[in-house]
Amino acid sequence: MEGGVRRMTARPENVHQARILRLLRTDGPRSRAELGDVVALSRSKIALELDRLAALGLVRSDGFAASRGGRRSEIVRLAANLRFLGVDIGATSVDVAVTNGELEVLGHLSRPADVRDGPTAVLDQVLEMVAKLRADGVVTEVHGAGIGVPGPVSLRDGTPIAPPIMPGWDRYPVREAMSQELGCPVLVNNDVNMMALGELHAGLARSAEDFLLVKIGTGIGCGIIVRGEIYSGVSGSAGDIGHIRVDDHGPVCACGNSGCLEAYFGGAALARDALAAARSGRSPFLAERLAEKSALTAEDVGAAAAAGDAHAVGMVREGGRKVGTVLAGLVNFFNPGLVVISGGVAGLGHALLAEIRSVVYQRSLPLATGNLPIVLSDLGGTAGVIGAARLVSDHVFSA
Amino acid sequence: MEGGVRRMTARPENVHQARILRLLRTDGPRSRAELGDVVALSRSKIALELDRLAALGLVRSDGFAASRGGRRSEIVRLAANLRFLGVDIGATSVDVAVTNGELEVLGHLSRPADVRDGPTAVLDQVLEMVAKLRADGVVTEVHGAGIGVPGPVSLRDGTPIAPPIMPGWDRYPVREAMSQELGCPVLVNNDVNMMALGELHAGLARSAEDFLLVKIGTGIGCGIIVRGEIYSGVSGSAGDIGHIRVDDHGPVCACGNSGCLEAYFGGAALARDALAAARSGRSPFLAERLAEKSALTAEDVGAAAAAGDAHAVGMVREGGRKVGTVLAGLVNFFNPGLVVISGGVAGLGHALLAEIRSVVYQRSLPLATGNLPIVLSDLGGTAGVIGAARLVSDHVFSA
Repeated sequence: MEGGVRRMTARPENVHQARILRLLRTDGPRSRAELGDVVALSRSKIALELDRLAALGLVRSDGFAASRGGRRSEIVRLAANLRFLGVDIGATSVDVAVTNGELEVLGHLSRPADVRDGPTAVLDQVLEMVAKLRADGVVTEVHGAGIGVPGPVSLRDGTPIAPPIMPGWDRYPVREAMSQELGCPVLVNNDVNMMALGELHAGLARSAEDFLLVKIGTGIGCGIIVRGEIYSGVSGSAGDIGHIRVDDHGPVCACGNSGCLEAYFGGAALARDALAAARSGRSPFLAERLAEKSALTAEDVGAAAAAGDAHAVGMVREGGRKVGTVLAGLVNFFNPGLVVISGGVAGLGHALLAEIRSVVYQRSLPLATGNLPIVLSDLGGTAGVIGAARLVSDHVFSA
Repeated sequence: MEGGVRRMTARPENVHQARILRLLRTDGPRSRAELGDVVALSRSKIALELDRLAALGLVRSDGFAASRGGRRSEIVRLAANLRFLGVDIGATSVDVAVTNGELEVLGHLSRPADVRDGPTAVLDQVLEMVAKLRADGVVTEVHGAGIGVPGPVSLRDGTPIAPPIMPGWDRYPVREAMSQELGCPVLVNNDVNMMALGELHAGLARSAEDFLLVKIGTGIGCGIIVRGEIYSGVSGSAGDIGHIRVDDHGPVCACGNSGCLEAYFGGAALARDALAAARSGRSPFLAERLAEKSALTAEDVGAAAAAGDAHAVGMVREGGRKVGTVLAGLVNFFNPGLVVISGGVAGLGHALLAEIRSVVYQRSLPLATGNLPIVLSDLGGTAGVIGAARLVSDHVFSA
């Protein structure tokens, strides 16, 4: 630990150090001998790099491993004081989590928030939540923060670009503003991409290299991981699958075209269909709900389906078929190793999953589906914040 | 040049040397000073690596550059005797080209061949063509060969896997067999992927990082380039877009489903529609052709459209709309920087391109199409062989 240097500015000095840090982050504590096996450096070179990392305050000793026949090898782990922030700004909520170097969640706050209130109000709320975590003693110094937002992002500028559901955020300098406030490196990306990275780090995608995360919520989006990294496309809009055409003669969509996936099965479409089903009496459950309150949402459809309301179950199945139809084409195109289904509507659960699977396995090519698991996320609401912390840790742990 | 070492086994010894070789391959001869600017090594380190590369027989001196103020800097280029083979095995033809280190085509042979004759016959023909190029004096030693085949490929094994139009090729050890015959490293990949790489090296995609190459021929396929490299998917079948659904109620496809893109606009679909148009008299041009010979093909539709036959032009336009419909979804998903249209039916040209563009620009999201050129390939029949040579050169020029 060098005197005047602020610890949060410590960064690996070369690719070997970066590689060691990422290994310790993802695989946990390792003996020097094990690290040597993986990193393929000589024993003396490994020792040198580890000494430098210790001097930078990035790793520490953690006792000795059982002997492998010779001298017992020292166990190395990431420094105890490393902290990353993962921020997940959704359409109607904000989540902030703080993790250690291994990206284990040490504290997590979730608050309702309306992204339409604009960047100043929402980012102020994020900072308040960080302050709360600080007051709780969970956050000390922050080494990096990742921020997911519900829209396309220019990675070069760290700003949202033309985000349809984020009025006031277009080209707002989120990265710069938050980097100044937090005094640490900040990376901004799309919320669905962050969720995909969370699945890669801590979810069902841990052993996947190339996979898709489909989020079904207010909107329908897709996170794309290629060779273990987010693929964002040239304008940051890759994975925006909500407006892929299902049918030329389908309902008119907010985007102006007809028959988009979201026009069938997004949050607004489900609310619209729920209202119709309540009014026509086709769904007694939804009719009752409508009598209690003035409007219906996708959540009400979920509740109705969970309660066994036949019409609502039918709505979920039909939506699953539309998602499956679009996904079948994407599976042919992308040939992923795994598809993870996530998001609010995914809470509709196994009826939805069964329909999606049925269509994809029928409509995609056997070679692409021969060994393709399609699963529901098991991370609940933490995928986005873990992914955000993971993204910035990749940056901090790079040479 | 070391005595007993066969020159073709020479490989760069570290990542710096590999980087220098790839730069010289793609950008051509460069002065030592220019290389130093790009590679970011000290002058003495660059000199050391270049001396090693010269000793390995991989680079040579080529005079001196104009002075930039001090001593004149030596110009370096790839060794004159470097040779790569690019092989493009199609459904009905085989192309073999030989290139120098910069992948300039020094000789190119194209012969009709039926891939259904199986690997022994077809690969023997490839070897004969190589022998012919050798006899012409164009090929000397071969440093690597890339081979494209019209089907999915296991990259790990270098074999076709379950290729639908290549009976007898399933898991045939193409890489191993050809590597033994040619005495050099061999890489095998899908022909459409090779074409995409050819566009990246020598075509309209030279400045693109993430783009799509859509080949419309006997089948319809898509090459995907991510971060400057082929993306093949987990089973090697990525880009197989011919069986993406256009419509539930479309014609039955060879794959067993209905309404696949190829069932509307593949070679077989065009031949079927051409026959119907000829018999019904809707196309006088095609009726005349049918009277001359017993069957019609996609080429006849192209000829009819080129001759101004209204029905044939309509067929091409309708096909372009179907391709555009599928492509619009893929553009939303993948957000590419460029789409290149290629292959036999692309010879139908601008009428086809206009329809594809019209649908994609209308149906895809503005953010994904705001700066998205959709163009016809200008490489003619050489994209596949150049891409194959490029792929193996990436391998040979790696540490």
